[in-house]
Amino acid sequence: MKIRLLSLAAIGLACALPAAAQFAKPEDAIKYRQSGMSLMATHFGRIGAMATGKAPFDAKAAADNAEVVAFVSRLPFAGFVEGSDKGGNTKAKPAIWTENDKFKAGASKMQEEVAKLNTAAKTGNLDQIKAAFGEAAKTCKACHDDYREK
Amino acid sequence: MKIRLLSLAAIGLACALPAAAQFAKPEDAIKYRQSGMSLMATHFGRIGAMATGKAPFDAKAAADNAEVVAFVSRLPFAGFVEGSDKGGNTKAKPAIWTENDKFKAGASKMQEEVAKLNTAAKTGNLDQIKAAFGEAAKTCKACHDDYREK
Repeated sequence: MKIRLLSLAAIGLACALPAAAQFAKPEDAIKYRQSGMSLMATHFGRIGAMATGKAPFDAKAAADNAEVVAFVSRLPFAGFVEGSDKGGNTKAKPAIWTENDKFKAGASKMQEEVAKLNTAAKTGNLDQIKAAFGEAAKTCKACHDDYREK
Repeated sequence: MKIRLLSLAAIGLACALPAAAQFAKPEDAIKYRQSGMSLMATHFGRIGAMATGKAPFDAKAAADNAEVVAFVSRLPFAGFVEGSDKGGNTKAKPAIWTENDKFKAGASKMQEEVAKLNTAAKTGNLDQIKAAFGEAAKTCKACHDDYREK
């Protein structure tokens, strides 16, 4: 139910922020999406460090980090506007726009999985967090493999 | 009460993310705080456009943008760790660390005002949003004047 609510919130936000007109220049859209991705990577990475035993498990920190990831996951995709395949220092591949439905489906899948990670993190159960982290990480990798230059 | 809860959440998050050890390199901390500030600026700017009549008022968009600003306002200050006055392309002034209590008080004031803006935005009342936006904008400017290079 929580996941469903978050998905609805994501849809609501996407509808409220519809247009390329939200960004004056392609560079602004690129900076926006990179900022969101960067924040996600930082907080997701901290959960990963706990999930893989590289950092001591701290249930409160895991929950806080997962909350940030889930919230911020709603944001960056609004920055992949038409015409922002060039303009800044972007690694975005043209396929984002030529197969945009598939790209968006990948984004939605990631948002679902980080919402599940957020739910798992609130339980404080490390095994559940590890499992949910792994599923979420797969969705990051899938899109990065297909849509981000090395 | 909502503001109080958000402040408590902010304190909780700050406690969960305490240490410079959260960032491997000063560059990482700088990128993190700049990413957070950039997201805030984008969403705050959209409310500003409505508050100043440069964009048509859309109550749902204002509320969504204010929610993002309030949430993300909790994040970037964790990136002002000791030793991150240099290392990347930062405009942070040394005074951030030499008068850190004052800097932190400015950050807290901003977080309070954007929480109020979030509350105002949920009312859908443009006059309330304009007033809260103005107060929040003052807190941005105050810290940028004192702590950010031109």
